[in-house]
Amino acid sequence: MEQYFVKETIGQNKFVIDDIESYKHIVKVLRHKVGDVVYLVDDTESLFVATIEEIDNDNSNLTVTVKKDNRATTELPIGVTIACSLSKKDKVEWITQKATELGAKKIIFFNSKYSIMHWKHNVVEKKLIRLQEIAKNAAQQSKRRIIPEVVYLDKLTELVDMKEETNLIAYEESAKQGEISLLAQTLQKEPRSIMCTFGPEGGFAPDEVDFLNQQGFLSVGLGPRIMRAETAPMYFLSVLSYKYELTVK
Amino acid sequence: MEQYFVKETIGQNKFVIDDIESYKHIVKVLRHKVGDVVYLVDDTESLFVATIEEIDNDNSNLTVTVKKDNRATTELPIGVTIACSLSKKDKVEWITQKATELGAKKIIFFNSKYSIMHWKHNVVEKKLIRLQEIAKNAAQQSKRRIIPEVVYLDKLTELVDMKEETNLIAYEESAKQGEISLLAQTLQKEPRSIMCTFGPEGGFAPDEVDFLNQQGFLSVGLGPRIMRAETAPMYFLSVLSYKYELTVK
Repeated sequence: MEQYFVKETIGQNKFVIDDIESYKHIVKVLRHKVGDVVYLVDDTESLFVATIEEIDNDNSNLTVTVKKDNRATTELPIGVTIACSLSKKDKVEWITQKATELGAKKIIFFNSKYSIMHWKHNVVEKKLIRLQEIAKNAAQQSKRRIIPEVVYLDKLTELVDMKEETNLIAYEESAKQGEISLLAQTLQKEPRSIMCTFGPEGGFAPDEVDFLNQQGFLSVGLGPRIMRAETAPMYFLSVLSYKYELTVK
Repeated sequence: MEQYFVKETIGQNKFVIDDIESYKHIVKVLRHKVGDVVYLVDDTESLFVATIEEIDNDNSNLTVTVKKDNRATTELPIGVTIACSLSKKDKVEWITQKATELGAKKIIFFNSKYSIMHWKHNVVEKKLIRLQEIAKNAAQQSKRRIIPEVVYLDKLTELVDMKEETNLIAYEESAKQGEISLLAQTLQKEPRSIMCTFGPEGGFAPDEVDFLNQQGFLSVGLGPRIMRAETAPMYFLSVLSYKYELTVK
């Protein structure tokens, strides 16, 4: 059963879905009829089972009766931000989709020295709208309770304003030197929020790493194999899920 | 510094690289000269630093002097097979590349009831050659010591012949029912080899799950979010790396 986000707070009994994208998807794409059921998630992250009562094609909306569903949240118990150096369009889109499926709360793209792509100022807004749409669709598909926020930073130094309780750099040089403990040590401390920063294919410039280290970002290794720029964030998010959502009973 | 696989066992001092793809990449693409250095991995999984001595363009080969490099292996300490239901061409290729980066030893694609793609018998060989090439390139890029083997099975039942010491199914229904312990419990036992099976977008048919369960495959949940068919194997491989390659000192 598919899920839709609504911007409002859902109250008692009845609700009108007037978001045009959701209307189109429910009525035109999936051809749902009166009596069919979908999930809705409202702005309080609550989940509802919604039964279609009336479809108003003239005004492109539909009325549903709602019943709160109290199943456990699908959100990670820790707020996770991934910050990735800009790469090609398809990789940026891919990272957004996969990071959403894997539970990221915020997805930052930033310019770094060895980034192979740069966004001109006049395209940033359009690109973010597109990425935010990808995040929304992936969040609906993976049954998230929130849509991750996608953010663009023109300079790596601006990452400092985005800091979370714990801040990391996935650093290939650390991995090469056999650093295998810091990620696990960090996760043992169970921070409430964490950010991990990932360089471009060519890696971070040494002075970028120095800067982030000075700002309290800890360089951690993610195992002995060299991962592509888009693979490392997926590794990180998967590990967080394993560490905080799966457990030996 | 880039790495190439050679099919032979590298002995003392000198070695001739006569693999045409490697020759082309080293001489034509990267335009290496005499005196330049590359890594070679031979059929015993040993790593060598190779210095180019002579480039023979007439015979498309190059002679190198080799020195063994004794750094630790980049292979997972557990043999991991992922078995994925067939999906679209780009996803199959993508899974092969990413699973290689993340350390899989064997990558199986199989037909299942709800697979949206099927391979005709006459295309299987060509497709496997292409996927094996992708695996080789990804293995070189991620500095693996082996090239994962890519295998195709026409029937899900043939998975039984591929069994490892421990065998799992990543099962959405288990996750939905709140199963959060079996993967962690299984990994605690430190099997020497493990296979995990992943269904198509539409999921496994109930009788497919029953069959695999009867054959000793354990259904495990991979967290509360619904992952796409290609994302779940990446989650699994990342978790294995974290569990067996990273550690709290």
